[in-house]
Amino acid sequence: MENKNIYLDNSAATRLDEKVLEAMKPFLFETYAVASSEFGYSMGIKTREALAQAREWLAKDISADAEELIFTSGATESSNIAIKSSVEKLSKKEKNHIITSQIEDFPVLNSCKKLENQGFRVTYLPVDENGFVDPAQLEKAITDHTILVSIQHANQEIGTVQDIAKIGKICKENDVLFHTDATHTFRRLPIDVNKFNIDLVTLSAHTIHGPKGIGGLYVRKGTPLAKYFDGGFQEFDKRPGLVNIPGAVGFAKAAELVTEEENNKLTNLRDHLINRILDEIPKTTLNGHRKKRVPQNANITFHLVEGESITLHMDMRGFSLSTGSACFSNSLEASHVILGIGGDHERAHGSVRFSLSRYNTKEQVDRTVDEISDVIQKLRDISPLSNGSEQNELQKEKIS
Amino acid sequence: MENKNIYLDNSAATRLDEKVLEAMKPFLFETYAVASSEFGYSMGIKTREALAQAREWLAKDISADAEELIFTSGATESSNIAIKSSVEKLSKKEKNHIITSQIEDFPVLNSCKKLENQGFRVTYLPVDENGFVDPAQLEKAITDHTILVSIQHANQEIGTVQDIAKIGKICKENDVLFHTDATHTFRRLPIDVNKFNIDLVTLSAHTIHGPKGIGGLYVRKGTPLAKYFDGGFQEFDKRPGLVNIPGAVGFAKAAELVTEEENNKLTNLRDHLINRILDEIPKTTLNGHRKKRVPQNANITFHLVEGESITLHMDMRGFSLSTGSACFSNSLEASHVILGIGGDHERAHGSVRFSLSRYNTKEQVDRTVDEISDVIQKLRDISPLSNGSEQNELQKEKIS
Repeated sequence: MENKNIYLDNSAATRLDEKVLEAMKPFLFETYAVASSEFGYSMGIKTREALAQAREWLAKDISADAEELIFTSGATESSNIAIKSSVEKLSKKEKNHIITSQIEDFPVLNSCKKLENQGFRVTYLPVDENGFVDPAQLEKAITDHTILVSIQHANQEIGTVQDIAKIGKICKENDVLFHTDATHTFRRLPIDVNKFNIDLVTLSAHTIHGPKGIGGLYVRKGTPLAKYFDGGFQEFDKRPGLVNIPGAVGFAKAAELVTEEENNKLTNLRDHLINRILDEIPKTTLNGHRKKRVPQNANITFHLVEGESITLHMDMRGFSLSTGSACFSNSLEASHVILGIGGDHERAHGSVRFSLSRYNTKEQVDRTVDEISDVIQKLRDISPLSNGSEQNELQKEKIS
Repeated sequence: MENKNIYLDNSAATRLDEKVLEAMKPFLFETYAVASSEFGYSMGIKTREALAQAREWLAKDISADAEELIFTSGATESSNIAIKSSVEKLSKKEKNHIITSQIEDFPVLNSCKKLENQGFRVTYLPVDENGFVDPAQLEKAITDHTILVSIQHANQEIGTVQDIAKIGKICKENDVLFHTDATHTFRRLPIDVNKFNIDLVTLSAHTIHGPKGIGGLYVRKGTPLAKYFDGGFQEFDKRPGLVNIPGAVGFAKAAELVTEEENNKLTNLRDHLINRILDEIPKTTLNGHRKKRVPQNANITFHLVEGESITLHMDMRGFSLSTGSACFSNSLEASHVILGIGGDHERAHGSVRFSLSRYNTKEQVDRTVDEISDVIQKLRDISPLSNGSEQNELQKEKIS
């Protein structure tokens, strides 16, 4: 199954690194005992040690203690637990207010909506044209009823990095729990749960060439947390189910393989991609901040063209690209993120998300820009959207 | 990391089959696109097809339609969703009664306890000395308030197989949802959701040499089910989160690799193990039914000896064995299953669970019996439990 496709889409980072599989193999084929057996047998001790090591490596990287990190099945589960299970423990009649942002990823946004349906009050903070939450506005939104603030570290679509140090400080000063979804920043940007005053962090393995089906949740010591799943006593009695030790070992290995050098390389590739597109292709808008964005993300609207048409045509030329976020790229709804930063439906539908990974090269980025430039020109030539302002307006109405 | 250990413990079946990894590899390294991209690109279509194929294979095996099977992170998640999310949708003031058995595995048992704490009424049906639920007793327990019956297909510790056809018929006749935890029976015993009238089934991959971190949940068309996780729209809008396609492909491959021939081999090995132990080692009790048990399980109490001592001594001789269930082998609590079938604490603490897998041979089983026979004799020689009835009674009191 050879595959010459060039991936710059949202799945690019989910390609497993061969070294990760190598690290997992002993725990797939040789030492696969259940780690939770306390009295058991030497194989169980070996797996328990491997699990402890993986946990320690990951925890240390965000300046946490090992026992503050639990393994989950992924970011969606982690965010659901972080939000719903902390609120379940803390909510009382007078403690029923949650604050989040309008551009959170679906696990956070829809967990908040679910709680809203159950009677909680939720403030969805707006963001500015770059996607930034205003810390002053957050502070004003906090009341005596507030129990939890959930603001992402970086955005899933436009890559904007929030000032979580400032947000954490505000939460700490106001004695409110702070959860951040770090799915797209873990190992790409530094996270220090103590410096940043974070109580709960969502971590993902598959965004850094780690295995699918495993994620992490940092839970600060003493943070009240109901059990989300009921079952056995695994993961410090916080997350039952057979512990996925090969997954945990693979997660830690994947994290270890991300280097500062790689992040610098990605930042340079990203800037090269953005610069060339904005310089060479007319009527393009960068979504998100020019610099305060994750190293691996670029998101650009090609005006007067449909994003879906771009990805289809690029696909025929051997390039995998994504429109919108992974979560709704199978719906025709406009991205709530692009709408959140003030974009209209036309801007949302013409946006393409470029995700750079370990396996991308400058040569690939250059070829991508060359091809997309050609595709955009051809699409605009045949598009009713670009044929005069009258038709254009007509079409816009239809879309909205 | 060579490992000459002989595994007959509860992790034996979690050894990944090399063929499973081979089937997963293309989706780890080559075709790793997000499957949910509807409009996207050819790579996404390939992964979507692979996912559909895996789903179809697994669904067909239990006589279900593909769209009735969703992938989860494992059996614990599946049982939590099956029980809590169905009840969430169905519960009203007059519909608040759940029926389960006293010997269910912890995900089911503790989900029911959680609901009980939230105001539901739960009937925990007793079982007979072999672990069987009495269908007549179940029928009597059903009232107009009953919404769900959750009875496992086979027990996690003693392997007893319930008559789920009869149970399903009763549920159907009384218009009550029926969930069964098939973690230990899928592909080892036939399951037909239509013949057996099952509405929800918990499936696991790691119990048949498949990957960890993936499981399945069968949900009969039309069964009301709230979303347990909030997030995106994956898995027919029933289970959000990036779909673990390599995991799904590996799950299907693992299922495919289980053959009738293998199940017959396991049944023979099991019977050979049980016969030899009961014949050759005095004061032993088989836990569970002699024949109506899963092919891969034997559970035997060696009276007057601690199970932990047996596993430790066997471990020193190179054999991995388990006491009790995977879930509480790190606690000193007595198994609720052994207590459930009428055993006392002494019987519970002296029990050893043998789990046979693809990689066990008759020669290994024979060596295991030879060694355990020797271990038991030596332990009994030094045990205060076997030194006269007075001390014995004294010790029993201490334990209980």
